Amino acid sequence: MEIQRPTLVVDYDRLERNLQKMLHKANKSDVIFRPHFKTHQSAEIAKCFRKHGVKSITVSSVSMARYFADHGWDDICIAFPLNILEIDEIVNLSRSITLSVLVESSVHIETLMNNIATAVGVWIKIDTGYHRTGLSSDDKQIEALIQQIRSSNHLIFKGFLTHAGHTYYAKGQSEILNIMVSARKQMTALKDQYQDSGSPVLLSYGDTPSCSLATDFSGFDEIRPGNFVYYDVMQYHLGSCALDDIAVAIACPVVAKHKQRNEIVIYGGGVHLSKEFIAGDNGFKLYGYVVEIKDKSWGEPIAGAYVSSLSQEHGIVYLPASDFHRFKEGDLLGVLPIHSCMPANLLPKP
Amino acid sequence: MEIQRPTLVVDYDRLERNLQKMLHKANKSDVIFRPHFKTHQSAEIAKCFRKHGVKSITVSSVSMARYFADHGWDDICIAFPLNILEIDEIVNLSRSITLSVLVESSVHIETLMNNIATAVGVWIKIDTGYHRTGLSSDDKQIEALIQQIRSSNHLIFKGFLTHAGHTYYAKGQSEILNIMVSARKQMTALKDQYQDSGSPVLLSYGDTPSCSLATDFSGFDEIRPGNFVYYDVMQYHLGSCALDDIAVAIACPVVAKHKQRNEIVIYGGGVHLSKEFIAGDNGFKLYGYVVEIKDKSWGEPIAGAYVSSLSQEHGIVYLPASDFHRFKEGDLLGVLPIHSCMPANLLPKP
Repeated sequence: MEIQRPTLVVDYDRLERNLQKMLHKANKSDVIFRPHFKTHQSAEIAKCFRKHGVKSITVSSVSMARYFADHGWDDICIAFPLNILEIDEIVNLSRSITLSVLVESSVHIETLMNNIATAVGVWIKIDTGYHRTGLSSDDKQIEALIQQIRSSNHLIFKGFLTHAGHTYYAKGQSEILNIMVSARKQMTALKDQYQDSGSPVLLSYGDTPSCSLATDFSGFDEIRPGNFVYYDVMQYHLGSCALDDIAVAIACPVVAKHKQRNEIVIYGGGVHLSKEFIAGDNGFKLYGYVVEIKDKSWGEPIAGAYVSSLSQEHGIVYLPASDFHRFKEGDLLGVLPIHSCMPANLLPKP
Repeated sequence: MEIQRPTLVVDYDRLERNLQKMLHKANKSDVIFRPHFKTHQSAEIAKCFRKHGVKSITVSSVSMARYFADHGWDDICIAFPLNILEIDEIVNLSRSITLSVLVESSVHIETLMNNIATAVGVWIKIDTGYHRTGLSSDDKQIEALIQQIRSSNHLIFKGFLTHAGHTYYAKGQSEILNIMVSARKQMTALKDQYQDSGSPVLLSYGDTPSCSLATDFSGFDEIRPGNFVYYDVMQYHLGSCALDDIAVAIACPVVAKHKQRNEIVIYGGGVHLSKEFIAGDNGFKLYGYVVEIKDKSWGEPIAGAYVSSLSQEHGIVYLPASDFHRFKEGDLLGVLPIHSCMPANLLPKP
């Protein structure tokens, strides 16, 4: 099938390389590899993981858990604060798969206790510095929450889970790695405090920037990176990957040309690429690098070319004069996305 | 059905008011009302237009034209530069509905001439200052393009179409209205130049900010506003609407609370709301206002409350201390979106 409209193109060689690298590091550190599938949300891409023996996965919504459960995945962690409005579907899932969920309040646990009738794993979400969700590691509620979980016949206290999302705001690789060091310190202190008071206590750690840069995950029991499977321009800027690790591009038809400003209009807008951008102080906005796609792969971005603006369906690509003439209406340009999770969510899955 | 996850809620009274107001102005100015359906993309919402006798519509992709054609709409303008890779589907559409398309190069027209076998309306896209697509009104190619169109047996030269999207960057209402004045001047000059050289020449004009503020559309033959049906926070800030004209909100479950920073975590992230924001120099980011939804309607936004950040599935809502205690896990908060077209595209349609 020829590409006619904005289409996600996966370079499977790069994907395989990214996957093997992370898997190898996880194995070497003897931690469970529970990749986050929110990035690709694709049963097809998921098969690449299964080929390597991956059995445990992470998702970020109940709907996504349902999707992957329906595709044969039977050990799923929903890494999102328990949405008590979806408790019926959570109960349904718990009947057919090994399910674990996140809690950070007694309301969450109470809702589970009042509804769940089979075993469900429960993680307490810890905020190790991102300040989006979770409890501080020194929060006084933690002990009571563990007792509440352990008082239930069906809830299994798994341990502590954190997402070090503040690595996305770090300046440089050493700051990213320091965030992981700090998270490990906070998490292992919790483990030391609570592990001998009952069942074993596990530590689960996430985020692509630090998992990409670290070589050793010891101290943790499980890692949950997700974005590394595709990577993107943001990860490249953070230093988590090289440009040629980016395994996904969006192929966009050229629909108009404006020579007087060296701009090409592509069919590919906010509804395909999302409107995430990287901005300079001078008003410069970067919505993606531009590549030439051949046989589902591509080389380096075209030097000096970039997606400079997006509206609902239109994208504007600036091209240097020396490259402008090489493309005509009906050609395809590839866009390396700023944040790959977003177009992967917006476009038909591979 | 109870709301369990991020859900688009439409206030039909407000929608009806927005619709009647625009329709009334169009009728008074005796112009064709060809609303842009890219905002709602919903056959259900479309029925509200049909009820008022609207028959001509605008869409921004071939896929959207197909969707509305399949729902009984038979006069559709695809207001997007002709994507020649979709010519087969364009030909299919032309066989069953009154279709018009946009061109701005001889490649576009040539592709149509080589494929189309029934009547298709053709507009030349004019750039009246937005500089996204189209030809300047003084572009020397225009005459040749018109001749090329008129040389075909199947192509019907409709006239000139412009989208004054630069109203979105205007500072204040008078600048918005001046953009319309300038566009009208450029467009009527074109009409004067070409109308006596063949078939009648029409002028089609779009954009919600100026169509909302203007009271008189004379000079144009057709208007194509779209966003006005829902409006949004951006339109409010531009001065195109009042806060209580915003006819759409996204109902989001409360999933966690963080009292120490007066933040509530909602299930509602970039994949539901899109990541569009309004930014202040001080790092402040506004991803939406917050309302209480009751019976598919809502009042004023909660003063001092706003969506302060979004990740893939999470939204962070800042609430003043005096309101923080009023909401608990399992409640719904409503978000008035920055740009309604985006969540309307992302979420299941009404």
